[in-house]
Amino acid sequence: MARYSELSVDELSALRESLQAEYEEIKSCGLKLDMSRGKPSAAQLDLSMDLLNCLTEEDIKSVSPDVRNYGLLEGLPGMRKLFADMLGLKPEEIFVGGNSSLNLMYDTLAKGMLFGYYNSEKPWSQCGKIKFLCPVPGYDRHFGVTETLGIEMLTVPMTSTGPDMDIVEELVNNDASIKGIWCVPMYSNPDGITYSDETVRRFANLKPAAKDFRIFWDNAYCVHHVSDQHDELLNLMDECRKAGTEDSVFMFASTSKVTFSGAGVAAFGCSENNMKHLVKLISMQTIGFDKVNQLRHLKYFKDLDGVKAHMEKHCALMKPKFETVLRHLDEEIAPLGIAEWKRPNGGYFISLNVLSGCAKQVVSLCKEAGVVLTPAGATFPYGVDPLDRNIRIAPSFPTAEELEMATKVLCLSVKLASAEQLLAQKKTAGSEKDATVVA
Amino acid sequence: MARYSELSVDELSALRESLQAEYEEIKSCGLKLDMSRGKPSAAQLDLSMDLLNCLTEEDIKSVSPDVRNYGLLEGLPGMRKLFADMLGLKPEEIFVGGNSSLNLMYDTLAKGMLFGYYNSEKPWSQCGKIKFLCPVPGYDRHFGVTETLGIEMLTVPMTSTGPDMDIVEELVNNDASIKGIWCVPMYSNPDGITYSDETVRRFANLKPAAKDFRIFWDNAYCVHHVSDQHDELLNLMDECRKAGTEDSVFMFASTSKVTFSGAGVAAFGCSENNMKHLVKLISMQTIGFDKVNQLRHLKYFKDLDGVKAHMEKHCALMKPKFETVLRHLDEEIAPLGIAEWKRPNGGYFISLNVLSGCAKQVVSLCKEAGVVLTPAGATFPYGVDPLDRNIRIAPSFPTAEELEMATKVLCLSVKLASAEQLLAQKKTAGSEKDATVVA
Repeated sequence: MARYSELSVDELSALRESLQAEYEEIKSCGLKLDMSRGKPSAAQLDLSMDLLNCLTEEDIKSVSPDVRNYGLLEGLPGMRKLFADMLGLKPEEIFVGGNSSLNLMYDTLAKGMLFGYYNSEKPWSQCGKIKFLCPVPGYDRHFGVTETLGIEMLTVPMTSTGPDMDIVEELVNNDASIKGIWCVPMYSNPDGITYSDETVRRFANLKPAAKDFRIFWDNAYCVHHVSDQHDELLNLMDECRKAGTEDSVFMFASTSKVTFSGAGVAAFGCSENNMKHLVKLISMQTIGFDKVNQLRHLKYFKDLDGVKAHMEKHCALMKPKFETVLRHLDEEIAPLGIAEWKRPNGGYFISLNVLSGCAKQVVSLCKEAGVVLTPAGATFPYGVDPLDRNIRIAPSFPTAEELEMATKVLCLSVKLASAEQLLAQKKTAGSEKDATVVA
Repeated sequence: MARYSELSVDELSALRESLQAEYEEIKSCGLKLDMSRGKPSAAQLDLSMDLLNCLTEEDIKSVSPDVRNYGLLEGLPGMRKLFADMLGLKPEEIFVGGNSSLNLMYDTLAKGMLFGYYNSEKPWSQCGKIKFLCPVPGYDRHFGVTETLGIEMLTVPMTSTGPDMDIVEELVNNDASIKGIWCVPMYSNPDGITYSDETVRRFANLKPAAKDFRIFWDNAYCVHHVSDQHDELLNLMDECRKAGTEDSVFMFASTSKVTFSGAGVAAFGCSENNMKHLVKLISMQTIGFDKVNQLRHLKYFKDLDGVKAHMEKHCALMKPKFETVLRHLDEEIAPLGIAEWKRPNGGYFISLNVLSGCAKQVVSLCKEAGVVLTPAGATFPYGVDPLDRNIRIAPSFPTAEELEMATKVLCLSVKLASAEQLLAQKKTAGSEKDATVVA
């Protein structure tokens, strides 16, 4: 197999024709496959079925105050401990919420807009134009929350060690309108990158121009390995304590991709100052979250070791799926020089960078052939990937068989779109050269 | 027993002394009783224990899409139907949320502040000073949400048929800064009043000066009877449809006081225009609420008839408690002419009006004797009851035995505070008369 860039116009033309024929054939199969979202598969959800009815009347009655009743706003002490261990915090630094960490992030940011935080001069909605840094590629729902709340988004490129910290420092330390940054520090969405120790330390040592600057540290994949090799993430809060910046961090986690994605437990963590301020506001908003579900999870896992043991079962299901996608990419795409990708040790995604200007076309070809991918551009604020090249692949949801087929369609679409693009480029370059000669 | 107001200074003085002695005796018992909040008792929570583990694997697998996974933002169709039947709406007018209707109310109002509603010119937070009408006495947590969000509260007196609609119409139809009103239309908190048909019709036919005015219709007690006599509430949305005002209503309900107060299911209902606008915003905030708990409730109840049958069991526990409080008040307080109260057919409270200026003292006496009541003033915005006379009694939580004792303490405290106050008044009046004579 030759690299596409080295092919002549005629060779590319013939290639495109044969790929198109192959594509038409696969399109006629009428596939209906979904690799669009980081959704656990049915087999993964089946792993937690014992959670469903694990609580006995005795369990319920052994806890005081009554978990069935109102109250205990910050959550069940045992569950606060479990999330504290997960995030590397103290239990009193944890607030256990409902079923969705995204909702907690939205709500926390909305509180910034409505009220400001404990060290804010005024609500962020009264600060004129404010901005958030968004490492890219990143998580589309972070960007959705930010855009919805009317906060301008500035992109920062991801490197292999996390966001480009030279740029982050330059911006955060000099522009007081920058109020925060989104981070998925471990197995980042979609790159699967874990921030290096240096990156974490530089986050802890930011000197923000905005004194109420906040790092939204979405540790969504802190126990979500898909390989025997586990990444390690330095504890940001420990580093912040050393630097005296612990008030600048909000951390988030959940069991959404541990037990049931729709019926898990989510939590946020923060310093005592932030907690006091937020709890006072939340106490006006609700009398408490679902403590029965918290107790259910606590009984099921007992502690963080229980969670880790459970995550090994997820890994056993996820690892072969990641391997399937990577194998296809390695075998079918790598020799052609038309795309690059990461090999993450955890998380839910493989981040694929195709030739610039091809991502939308690849996603569109896949869709026509019955394979739904995350829309191209979704990994960038406002849905605009300036180079139109990043595609987020979510291998978790399809069965192994479906995934084989879906990845085949994906690879074919990458090849077809690349051949089309290179052909068009060569033709344009050729006719320009001709034009030059004639002139 | 003579009416206190007819007693002489000497008689009142002797009375106060004997009441004080009685009070000291009861205080020395070291009671620890709680009538502060509308919390179901353990016995009530026990009614729903079969809910806990009622879902089988088969139940889970019989529903598509998978309730364990992400998605179905608006809620499980069956649960939307159930709440629709409860609130008298169409299923597509229902959004099923998390465990707390208060949280839905906060969130809906916060959305008004952050974004405005579908027919708002701009976010309410950018409209300068805006106001909400608060029928009083009312629900302290409504007032808490409103105050927290920086909305000014104007009180409207409750009558036996609901809020004084002459005042409501006069204010709403002429003041564009009034953006909404809080209502607990059935078995109101704390009075237990159900709005009359005329009141409901007048709400539907308001001609608000603010075109994005909203009625927050918190139907918290729509199936919560405590008597064989059931109140009936006219369907506001039906009346609104006739008047073309269906966009002016947000309705709320939950199973918090049906199953588990902390682990039930809450919902809001509204017109198609409002729903479209809100769902778009909520879709940025979360991927969905806990559908497993929704399915659990749906299986447990099947339909509204199932809920109603279940509520009869609650009634069997609540009715004697209401009777206990009312019996004590009837026997011990009624002949003395020192307080008035309602006899509600449902809800969670008995609203007691003592002599003006006595409520705080009564609550304080009860507290010192070990009986916690809702703080005096809590039923008014900003915690200030201008006449200092309303006390909200929540009889649900204590056991029957505890309630007997708590009510005894309450009656004694009312008597003591009243005797003290009348004595002080008579003495002042007497010395003023003396002073006049001397002059």
